[in-house]
Amino acid sequence: MERPRHQGMAKNTYMRWRLPLVCLLWEVAMIVLFGVFVRFGPEADAHWEEEKQEMNLTSDIENDFYFRYPSFQDVHVMIFVGFGFLMTFLKRYGFGAVGFNFLLAAFGIQWALLMQGWFHSFKSGKILIGVENLINADFCVGSVCIAFGAILGKTSPIQLLVMTLFQVTLFSVNEYILLNLLHVKDAGGSMTIHTFGAYFGLTVTRILYRPNLEQSKDKQGSVYHSDLFAMIGTLYLWMYWPSFNSAISDHGDAQHRAAINTYCSLAACVLTTMAFSSMLQKKGKLDMVHIQNATLAGGVAVGTSAEMMLTPYGSLIVGFISGIVSTVGYVYLTPFLESKLHIQDTCGIHNLHAMPGLIGGIVGAITAAAATEDVYGKEGFIKAFDFTGTYQTRTPSVQGGFQAAGIVVSLLMAFTGGALVGAILKLPVWGDAAAENCFEDDVYWEVPEDEEGDAYHMHNPDKPASP
Amino acid sequence: MERPRHQGMAKNTYMRWRLPLVCLLWEVAMIVLFGVFVRFGPEADAHWEEEKQEMNLTSDIENDFYFRYPSFQDVHVMIFVGFGFLMTFLKRYGFGAVGFNFLLAAFGIQWALLMQGWFHSFKSGKILIGVENLINADFCVGSVCIAFGAILGKTSPIQLLVMTLFQVTLFSVNEYILLNLLHVKDAGGSMTIHTFGAYFGLTVTRILYRPNLEQSKDKQGSVYHSDLFAMIGTLYLWMYWPSFNSAISDHGDAQHRAAINTYCSLAACVLTTMAFSSMLQKKGKLDMVHIQNATLAGGVAVGTSAEMMLTPYGSLIVGFISGIVSTVGYVYLTPFLESKLHIQDTCGIHNLHAMPGLIGGIVGAITAAAATEDVYGKEGFIKAFDFTGTYQTRTPSVQGGFQAAGIVVSLLMAFTGGALVGAILKLPVWGDAAAENCFEDDVYWEVPEDEEGDAYHMHNPDKPASP
Amino acid sequence: MERPRHQGMAKNTYMRWRLPLVCLLWEVAMIVLFGVFVRFGPEADAHWEEEKQEMNLTSDIENDFYFRYPSFQDVHVMIFVGFGFLMTFLKRYGFGAVGFNFLLAAFGIQWALLMQGWFHSFKSGKILIGVENLINADFCVGSVCIAFGAILGKTSPIQLLVMTLFQVTLFSVNEYILLNLLHVKDAGGSMTIHTFGAYFGLTVTRILYRPNLEQSKDKQGSVYHSDLFAMIGTLYLWMYWPSFNSAISDHGDAQHRAAINTYCSLAACVLTTMAFSSMLQKKGKLDMVHIQNATLAGGVAVGTSAEMMLTPYGSLIVGFISGIVSTVGYVYLTPFLESKLHIQDTCGIHNLHAMPGLIGGIVGAITAAAATEDVYGKEGFIKAFDFTGTYQTRTPSVQGGFQAAGIVVSLLMAFTGGALVGAILKLPVWGDAAAENCFEDDVYWEVPEDEEGDAYHMHNPDKPASP
Repeated sequence: MERPRHQGMAKNTYMRWRLPLVCLLWEVAMIVLFGVFVRFGPEADAHWEEEKQEMNLTSDIENDFYFRYPSFQDVHVMIFVGFGFLMTFLKRYGFGAVGFNFLLAAFGIQWALLMQGWFHSFKSGKILIGVENLINADFCVGSVCIAFGAILGKTSPIQLLVMTLFQVTLFSVNEYILLNLLHVKDAGGSMTIHTFGAYFGLTVTRILYRPNLEQSKDKQGSVYHSDLFAMIGTLYLWMYWPSFNSAISDHGDAQHRAAINTYCSLAACVLTTMAFSSMLQKKGKLDMVHIQNATLAGGVAVGTSAEMMLTPYGSLIVGFISGIVSTVGYVYLTPFLESKLHIQDTCGIHNLHAMPGLIGGIVGAITAAAATEDVYGKEGFIKAFDFTGTYQTRTPSVQGGFQAAGIVVSLLMAFTGGALVGAILKLPVWGDAAAENCFEDDVYWEVPEDEEGDAYHMHNPDKPASP
Repeated sequence: MERPRHQGMAKNTYMRWRLPLVCLLWEVAMIVLFGVFVRFGPEADAHWEEEKQEMNLTSDIENDFYFRYPSFQDVHVMIFVGFGFLMTFLKRYGFGAVGFNFLLAAFGIQWALLMQGWFHSFKSGKILIGVENLINADFCVGSVCIAFGAILGKTSPIQLLVMTLFQVTLFSVNEYILLNLLHVKDAGGSMTIHTFGAYFGLTVTRILYRPNLEQSKDKQGSVYHSDLFAMIGTLYLWMYWPSFNSAISDHGDAQHRAAINTYCSLAACVLTTMAFSSMLQKKGKLDMVHIQNATLAGGVAVGTSAEMMLTPYGSLIVGFISGIVSTVGYVYLTPFLESKLHIQDTCGIHNLHAMPGLIGGIVGAITAAAATEDVYGKEGFIKAFDFTGTYQTRTPSVQGGFQAAGIVVSLLMAFTGGALVGAILKLPVWGDAAAENCFEDDVYWEVPEDEEGDAYHMHNPDKPASP
Repeated sequence: MERPRHQGMAKNTYMRWRLPLVCLLWEVAMIVLFGVFVRFGPEADAHWEEEKQEMNLTSDIENDFYFRYPSFQDVHVMIFVGFGFLMTFLKRYGFGAVGFNFLLAAFGIQWALLMQGWFHSFKSGKILIGVENLINADFCVGSVCIAFGAILGKTSPIQLLVMTLFQVTLFSVNEYILLNLLHVKDAGGSMTIHTFGAYFGLTVTRILYRPNLEQSKDKQGSVYHSDLFAMIGTLYLWMYWPSFNSAISDHGDAQHRAAINTYCSLAACVLTTMAFSSMLQKKGKLDMVHIQNATLAGGVAVGTSAEMMLTPYGSLIVGFISGIVSTVGYVYLTPFLESKLHIQDTCGIHNLHAMPGLIGGIVGAITAAAATEDVYGKEGFIKAFDFTGTYQTRTPSVQGGFQAAGIVVSLLMAFTGGALVGAILKLPVWGDAAAENCFEDDVYWEVPEDEEGDAYHMHNPDKPASP
């Protein structure tokens, strides 16, 4: 029973020195870089008492902490429990799903604090961080979690760390281009997080194509309770998505509006997902894969426009469409991508993040282009699109054009970056498993003995459980 | 092994066209109605910048979003994870519990935004929504989730959607009568949510009585891990109940007080539940059904009075009593209701919501009747009961009488509404399963093959797993 | 199959009258004491309207509720879901883990409200409570949950309630000595919660030493899905720890800073845990026990210093070290403590709470001693360490000395208190199970029949499942 795995060991999945070395060296690097660069921002620094007086603030409640911390915690849950548990649907890869997601996200947020800090919070040689930086770091890592979904079960933890290092870097560059150079709005990250993260991951998995993956086909499915674990992930993503899309919006009405739009879009999305899941299956039964994933497409697809005056019914329409697109994608597109384009997309991120992300970018461009002073109010219009300073004269239609350009840039960054990183991950030094050992925790984890024997026995009734 | 299910199919549980049609048509209806009626409220609209100046607000933190959004998210978790997972205790109905709860709640919140909006947020032809509307929509759907508990495992998803449509409508009418016509206080919904929802659901399940339900008796129990999944639901309901009861209370002390009272009541309730669970069982062992449910009765039973000056010890007393009533109900009343009154109450909502809801209404009436200016302060007294305008001269004892009337109205609405909706759901067109296929996900869901075979094998050791 | 359990019953684990009696009597005592002593604090009382005017507050948002309630809810989740599910890793003790944790915490928070109230919130004969009291009660109970981890699976629910009664009392005394007499800073409780709780629990389990515990060795492990349930606990503890360490810090920058420091420390801790988990295992595989526990050591170890100007890189260093210490502890120290010192530590709290708690105390002492007006600003310095009134002239180095004294006091209280309570729990009247029935839910819980038979069959393949 152990033999096929030992054959797989021929690919040398032995992590004992490689994984510790990478983890420790990189963490030391983080400490050094944080030591040189990272300090508390003014609202987290003990000098805040003086700062308050300078800024004429009468109350501690004006600290950004109270505007954003609850949303931050919701986002935090989405990254670690949401993405982590969403991927536990595989019958024998629950440890890897939750555990590797934990590892890469814990490293990624540190590196993201630095990368995004250099671009956005760099003042007199120091990166000054506050709660908004924590949210943005989580966001950035979200794009890595998305890409992880495409290669789930097929990579070693070292590969995931390497991918995280590069993807966070590229994410930050792309984000800088969009937000600062193109002056694009993307508070919920339809473009920067979802479109970029998904197409990046899809490119990586294309390059890591495994022709013999059907050898582990028996482990690519779920079992009853693993599907329930995955629903924990789904529901936390679904429930907290309004916090995700509103977390870094402007204080006041923008945060409020972003939450409402997202709430509406997600609600509509559930109904069209259920409808198409039943409709596209011969027996009319619902498919847990769709419920676990396509119900979330509505959150992705209003990521850019949620803080704009999309309106509740506009949000319903976006959710309506994205639930359909995503479910149809799972039924028809995923098999096509795998057989024809050799894109092996374990979690179907093309359906949950890539296509809805594109929809989100386009809806954002249209919503921006359609903005008027009448709808937003004079001050609200300027505030919503930050049409101040250099951008004082930008018109909505021009903004719409730049938004569209942001989609294209994100796609280009994703494809080139993904190709580069995919090539690096293809090097035979990272300890990934052989095809027949994919989707199997036993390769990198100590797995409880009894259960393992049973599980093996249960799913392979023709083979004996005892040695 | 598949044969009994195909016999069940004789009842035609085929959903392929019916479910998609209902989902899509109703969602289109939502879009149209939202398009005609729903707009952002002033605090979520981009005109807020001007609004702020008019209202003389100096800071964005005065936006209602910051008063209520954290509580909203807690309530959101209760509805989707709390109720959803609480019902996963059945060994073979976890997908239906979480998935159908997800479906009906996602539809219900949209319809509730409209129904409640017309009654409470209608201004110059538009429904203006903000975070408080989202909370109220979740509340309204909470009453549907409660009713779902009574019919869990015995209805098709279409029946659940039809029930949601009607129940949300009736809920909104009842809520309007109580809050606006009777000027009743019920921030945590002991009457509007729990009493109404529970007796509505009990009436529906009475009318849908299945004489042969013992045919699926083997599936009405739990397995070890399904009980742990259910505890996730229990704990999230228990932990976030203080947010539930305080979410729509007045800003400031009322929200603060409601949270404290609920925290106290729930703590006491756990101890009496444990005591009676052990005491009422011959071997003195604790019963997971009680721990999963009766521990929550304390939250229900302070729903009306939590925002009043119930005091911490008053809350302990309420929690003490409701834990006992609820546990005793599970042991003695539920079997009686089933055998004598033909009320098949899958989750025992009579014990968790109906009786504690009544207690909550009564405690609320008493607490209101006992209110004095001395205890509340002069301004606090007026603010707490909103004794302004038409109600300027209402006395506490009169208020107590109206509170009591609110209970009666809620009961009447529940019985008549439940009878009506039960009759509609009895029509043989909705695709519910035969008695022997109740409590079985396989009827409406794609269930993982291996596990299914195993599970069947495991729980029916005398039957072979292989076909 | 039932026989060995009935032999265990020779130790009389029959709870039917003892458990109910304790629960009901104690709850009645709580009601009486609450009735005599506990009232709403000014910010939760209906007189708040007048209070606001007296305090010149212009907005309800200044109510402490809005500063602390979101953090309170996060802490609440940590206590009930975090600790509860963290301990579900055992294959046959999930009900006991979640259920007994629920019971002891629900009792403990009530008793803590009283004990801490008498010490800290006692005004003119009444304990005036608000949201900060709820947080502190949860904190206090956290120390009991920690101690529970050491004796998990080996004690009856009555023993746990008795331990809770005493430990909450001793906790409150110790906390009073540290915070009020020594004027020590410990917002995240490295000393008061973790050091005290862990060494208390370790002393108790030492005294309750069971020489024949290897008789239940087969039940001391996990199964695949129980490890996933435990990860729910782990992740909620990990994600919400920034809320834990910042929940009762001063408004404004201190809360903000505490959250950032904790976020950083925890992120670093994950990487060193993964590194050492792989490094210390021959095959280089990751061990779920380490991932579930040692990843949290970083939160413990910045508990004292998180609200100080520890700086993000300082936090990374603390997290780095504590992840290593904790993982090494699991591999080498726990077996040593068990075999040589007869300390049977079910969850390894020595590694997760005791050692990191000591680190936390020491880091806090150093950080305090190193504080300067330059780093904190003049006002910030005074505010951070509350150097006012009697403590106006205390210098940082003196403060550091007192911090160190706080560690010693906590240890002394833990050892003497633990010895006392351990002796009480050793009395043969509390209904604990025989050694061969430890780690087995069936002793105190109704366990689903089918699953039980299966589980037994599955994990004991040489014994038949049918009677």
